[in-house]
Amino acid sequence: MARDMPVRWALEEVGQAYSIRSVGFDELDTPAYRAVQPFGQIPVLEIEGIVIFESGAIVLHIADRYSGLLPVDAAARARSIGWVIAALSTIEPPIVEREAAGYAERDQDWFDARQSIMSNRIARRLAQLSARLGDRPWLDQTFSAGDLMVVTVLRRLSDDSDLDPFPNLRDYVARGEARPAFRRAFAAQRALFEARRQPPAAGS
Amino acid sequence: MARDMPVRWALEEVGQAYSIRSVGFDELDTPAYRAVQPFGQIPVLEIEGIVIFESGAIVLHIADRYSGLLPVDAAARARSIGWVIAALSTIEPPIVEREAAGYAERDQDWFDARQSIMSNRIARRLAQLSARLGDRPWLDQTFSAGDLMVVTVLRRLSDDSDLDPFPNLRDYVARGEARPAFRRAFAAQRALFEARRQPPAAGS
Repeated sequence: MARDMPVRWALEEVGQAYSIRSVGFDELDTPAYRAVQPFGQIPVLEIEGIVIFESGAIVLHIADRYSGLLPVDAAARARSIGWVIAALSTIEPPIVEREAAGYAERDQDWFDARQSIMSNRIARRLAQLSARLGDRPWLDQTFSAGDLMVVTVLRRLSDDSDLDPFPNLRDYVARGEARPAFRRAFAAQRALFEARRQPPAAGS
Repeated sequence: MARDMPVRWALEEVGQAYSIRSVGFDELDTPAYRAVQPFGQIPVLEIEGIVIFESGAIVLHIADRYSGLLPVDAAARARSIGWVIAALSTIEPPIVEREAAGYAERDQDWFDARQSIMSNRIARRLAQLSARLGDRPWLDQTFSAGDLMVVTVLRRLSDDSDLDPFPNLRDYVARGEARPAFRRAFAAQRALFEARRQPPAAGS
């Protein structure tokens, strides 16, 4: 669920090759990395001499620079950018908040009660999103950066029951994950993960 | 603290006149409004026949369409957009989360303990932001959309003590609020608020 996934996916959608430099947790705190990413987060994209942080900004930059992720029509383009922001600013925060509490507050008396408050808040946003999507394949006429970012956020829920009341949202996520560009991005991310957790070869 | 403020401010910075249509709480839930804004939130901008929701997307659209809010240099422009996203996606969520708990969880046993957890999370982000800003007036060479959005988010804290350990952030907020465009936006928002809370004239 690392945030390199939407960046990989966006680059695959627009057909741009990329290379990865992994950053260790200890490096995130160094002055050199903070000079690039003030909050010590990943990912950072370096592209044509430009350095960009925040996955949402990176996706918007790729979508602006190459064709394939933003409609040409000005109104549809504005709506798509609106969905990128809605994904990050309206849909994602309660999801991340519940996740964070899942790590930090698991031993507290209030844990179950608060998880349930957060789940209700998530459900409210999902109901609104589900109503908007209806039975269309994408949020607008064609797949765009907005769908890429909304699907990315919904994938954080895919192992949970939150999506059960909203079959159209489950289908929407599956539709995103079935895109060839997504599959290439996923395979590449998985390969890196597998390579890094490989035990050292015998004798090394 | 309504989210029309960054939109008003952005329009003032680029010198574009605008008119306001207020939306009542009861209207937010109607199918007609949901067709425009799926989450029933404000604000929405209608501009040159284009309808845009999410304050971050609106600010980005204004900044893209008119000059004055985004640097011409491609790298600086990308950084500014990165700060708009960072404001919404990294700095704001714990601030909004603590606020929301302030309304919804005030009577719970866990209220104080959780507020303190959230305050620590906010302080961590502020420390990172403060380190980045240093003693410069703005996050980059010149004021940009990124500063507009970061200052907007920090203003949610201005009545609290969170900013006390970070005098450079307090100065930064004050610098934003001192801009003529901000002052015009603030005065206009205040005037609307005062007009609406005015008691009906005697005899009416």
